Amino acid sequence: MIIVIQCKDKVGLVAAISATLAKHLLNIVSMREHVDHNENVFFTRLEVEQGDDASLEDSLRKILPEGAYISVNPEPVKKVVVLATKEYHCLSDILVRNHFNTLGASVQCVIGNHAKLQNICERFDIPFYHISHEQVSKAEFEQKVIGTIKRYTPDYVVLAKFMRILSPQFVAEFPMKIINIHHSFLPAFIGANPYKQAFERGVKLIGATAHYVSNELDEGPIIAQQIVPVNHSYSWTDMVKAGQEVETAVLAKALKLVFEDRVFVYKNKTVVFE
Amino acid sequence: MIIVIQCKDKVGLVAAISATLAKHLLNIVSMREHVDHNENVFFTRLEVEQGDDASLEDSLRKILPEGAYISVNPEPVKKVVVLATKEYHCLSDILVRNHFNTLGASVQCVIGNHAKLQNICERFDIPFYHISHEQVSKAEFEQKVIGTIKRYTPDYVVLAKFMRILSPQFVAEFPMKIINIHHSFLPAFIGANPYKQAFERGVKLIGATAHYVSNELDEGPIIAQQIVPVNHSYSWTDMVKAGQEVETAVLAKALKLVFEDRVFVYKNKTVVFE
Amino acid sequence: MIIVIQCKDKVGLVAAISATLAKHLLNIVSMREHVDHNENVFFTRLEVEQGDDASLEDSLRKILPEGAYISVNPEPVKKVVVLATKEYHCLSDILVRNHFNTLGASVQCVIGNHAKLQNICERFDIPFYHISHEQVSKAEFEQKVIGTIKRYTPDYVVLAKFMRILSPQFVAEFPMKIINIHHSFLPAFIGANPYKQAFERGVKLIGATAHYVSNELDEGPIIAQQIVPVNHSYSWTDMVKAGQEVETAVLAKALKLVFEDRVFVYKNKTVVFE
Amino acid sequence: MIIVIQCKDKVGLVAAISATLAKHLLNIVSMREHVDHNENVFFTRLEVEQGDDASLEDSLRKILPEGAYISVNPEPVKKVVVLATKEYHCLSDILVRNHFNTLGASVQCVIGNHAKLQNICERFDIPFYHISHEQVSKAEFEQKVIGTIKRYTPDYVVLAKFMRILSPQFVAEFPMKIINIHHSFLPAFIGANPYKQAFERGVKLIGATAHYVSNELDEGPIIAQQIVPVNHSYSWTDMVKAGQEVETAVLAKALKLVFEDRVFVYKNKTVVFE
Repeated sequence: MIIVIQCKDKVGLVAAISATLAKHLLNIVSMREHVDHNENVFFTRLEVEQGDDASLEDSLRKILPEGAYISVNPEPVKKVVVLATKEYHCLSDILVRNHFNTLGASVQCVIGNHAKLQNICERFDIPFYHISHEQVSKAEFEQKVIGTIKRYTPDYVVLAKFMRILSPQFVAEFPMKIINIHHSFLPAFIGANPYKQAFERGVKLIGATAHYVSNELDEGPIIAQQIVPVNHSYSWTDMVKAGQEVETAVLAKALKLVFEDRVFVYKNKTVVFE
Repeated sequence: MIIVIQCKDKVGLVAAISATLAKHLLNIVSMREHVDHNENVFFTRLEVEQGDDASLEDSLRKILPEGAYISVNPEPVKKVVVLATKEYHCLSDILVRNHFNTLGASVQCVIGNHAKLQNICERFDIPFYHISHEQVSKAEFEQKVIGTIKRYTPDYVVLAKFMRILSPQFVAEFPMKIINIHHSFLPAFIGANPYKQAFERGVKLIGATAHYVSNELDEGPIIAQQIVPVNHSYSWTDMVKAGQEVETAVLAKALKLVFEDRVFVYKNKTVVFE
Repeated sequence: MIIVIQCKDKVGLVAAISATLAKHLLNIVSMREHVDHNENVFFTRLEVEQGDDASLEDSLRKILPEGAYISVNPEPVKKVVVLATKEYHCLSDILVRNHFNTLGASVQCVIGNHAKLQNICERFDIPFYHISHEQVSKAEFEQKVIGTIKRYTPDYVVLAKFMRILSPQFVAEFPMKIINIHHSFLPAFIGANPYKQAFERGVKLIGATAHYVSNELDEGPIIAQQIVPVNHSYSWTDMVKAGQEVETAVLAKALKLVFEDRVFVYKNKTVVFE
Repeated sequence: MIIVIQCKDKVGLVAAISATLAKHLLNIVSMREHVDHNENVFFTRLEVEQGDDASLEDSLRKILPEGAYISVNPEPVKKVVVLATKEYHCLSDILVRNHFNTLGASVQCVIGNHAKLQNICERFDIPFYHISHEQVSKAEFEQKVIGTIKRYTPDYVVLAKFMRILSPQFVAEFPMKIINIHHSFLPAFIGANPYKQAFERGVKLIGATAHYVSNELDEGPIIAQQIVPVNHSYSWTDMVKAGQEVETAVLAKALKLVFEDRVFVYKNKTVVFE
């Protein structure tokens, strides 16, 4: 069983938490703990076994500072909705893992603003909704997408190369529940066409960043980043291909971390217990 | 202040330890904890601040299983003796860090079985002892080296490309206190001439391994490993050079971890709280 | 158009080759060249454009040493047969790339010694043959597999986690045409159960090796290798999972290199023009 | 012997060059070649042996397009002047390699705008000039530095953590001869305090970039880049330390490439034959 706690720090927190768990006869298998002393915030993730967790959350709330975030035994298989456009690499990787039950989540449906990826979803028996952004206002488009997402009450919304910028209204519907893969080593190449920028700048590494979506474009809390070396022999297209490989890998890694309840968000940062 | 504990695991250990620290008014700044459930061993490294540590070790011993290893406030700057032969790269890196007080240890002296590295030691005002292995028996050679080391009562002995195989008698004098850099990604190329082996095998990665020295040649507990990509254009000499870079880096990393009391040894393995 | 040449080295080869191409009005877009001076072997891969290649191979043969291997305009989309057992990760990755025409090859069929992966193949409309190794002799089993492969006359046979050791007779049928992904950083953990070995040895890196299959078990020419860091918190199972990610990545990389005619084999090594 | 050529591309260049070398009885040991088709620029680096190079440059100039850059047998040991401020890590690494003749260059002197690194230079018998930037105008300061540099007529000027921004006038004195190590994965954190920016942004990778200095701050052609993973447990200071390790490594790598005549500059990019 997993327990995650995020709250104001104070002396004796670990002692109080572990004493509470001992009272409930829960044996700590693994414990990760972090304190941000500048911000005075305490984070812990515990893996416990055996024992009685019936009233554990209440017991913990009594000994923790007011306003503590406590999650006892979070759903081990998260419900997710995936948004995509035309590129297949991230979506296919998610569909394959979902199919073989190794994603740590259950894909409820895929929404595409193009129809191109419908076929691959059907091959995996995943409902696909084609909601075009053309010939409607952005507000209308987003309302349709939001409505479709909400029917599935997902724990997370994954942007698997979804090439539309979301409005603050959209983001506000799913606060810190939207995960994006950015085709760059943020904050290096914010905005459109990062590979073109990278190519013209002659960089020697191409990166990708998985992050939560906040209202600032490409500025939400970073979950994971990775790079791959490139060189002068890479055309722009080669850089795109190399980038797609690293995008697939870093999104897979970030989703694993999030779905295993290893990622905490505060300010514009994350604590990640890998 | 650092506290490290290694002992048999049992239910409630974390609670008992953290309660003890709270009684001594010691605030936990950072806590790393690991349990090997197969072996039933518990490891923790705590960073605490303020409070009273006068009788802390006694207090901890009372609540820990018999035979627990406890170290309260270990010496922050370790004393080390370095053994080397002819290659300068690892030794120079250690001497530079030592000189600028960023090694986390204090180099007491360097012992070389060749005289070649005497000059660089003198430039850094570090005593150098040339103890040749030639024209003496291995036992005699080792006795001289052991004698010289013992005069400095070091916390650790670092083999910075020391190209003599140590006898079990030698190793027994400094159990789990000798750290070696092996010129290979163990266990790939045990023994002599690993780069020759690597070259002939056409490997695409060259590695290095920092490990504690046990009686089995190149078989002690691994502290850190790293690799660097190579390809067909690398001559044997190029592979050696690439290997030297990674040797320097991985030994530096391992020493930092050990000197900061982040490495625990059990069976033939390590727990490393990076 | 691609041209690859492998032959004995001699003075003036590059001049002679490039003069021949100029005569055929073929402009060199990219040229990679390597000479192994110990073995006196010359390798080149050229990308040329325009011009006339009708009798180019004949022209080249006239100016190259006897016995030269010359391939002018090799098939850009290779035909491959994939062999697998129960693990889905490498096979699925290949099937997805094949489906979206980015594999650089065309998967003709999949042969499994278990039926488990039949379903995923059917989802991608790829013929699957279940040829069990049970209740038949090894020779019979292999004959059936060889017979099925040969019906498709593939350029390459890919072992995507195929967990049967092939006999020399099998290997001899497809010399330097079989590509395997080995679940280890060769030559570290030859043979079965490398992750168990790695776990017990407490390694800090897990690797994978893609290589051609020769008659020596796990000893064929290495095409690509990669590693991923692990630590004491990894259970054996976690190491397997981490290994699967790197296996998928390194096999994908090796296949791309082979299918783009960037890999040359000689002795027990490769030259890879990445 | 090394030969490097950079010129406009045209059909038959490789044939013409290799024919010329053959006429001079020079055997090509290794050849790297790149064409930027968008910009129509040709680059090659050849390693040749034996033969007669007396009038080789003239012979090459006859067959190459007008304005070709040709360097036959460039000085194998470059003369360099190093500029530093207070941080020891990059400078010490250079001094050690210089001392053991593995730098590929000969350090003529070190100029510091602080006196702090004088001692380490003296230990290696390298002249140190303390030229303070305080209480003089920037122009005066730079004139003194330029004057001192020019006395040594160096091939390259290395900024080994030199914390003053150079004026365009300074840069113009040594065009594409100044190499800087930037404490960031450019273009992520241009300008001052990149680690503070990185810390506040919560990045998961810290990088460093070695580049030629042009008039645009931190915008010159990139030679090499590398990264190191970091996480939430890293304080700002820890990120600085991790950054210093990668700075040292990436500057060493870039210098090796430059000193071996493997780096070509055009537009704002490099071609690097690693």
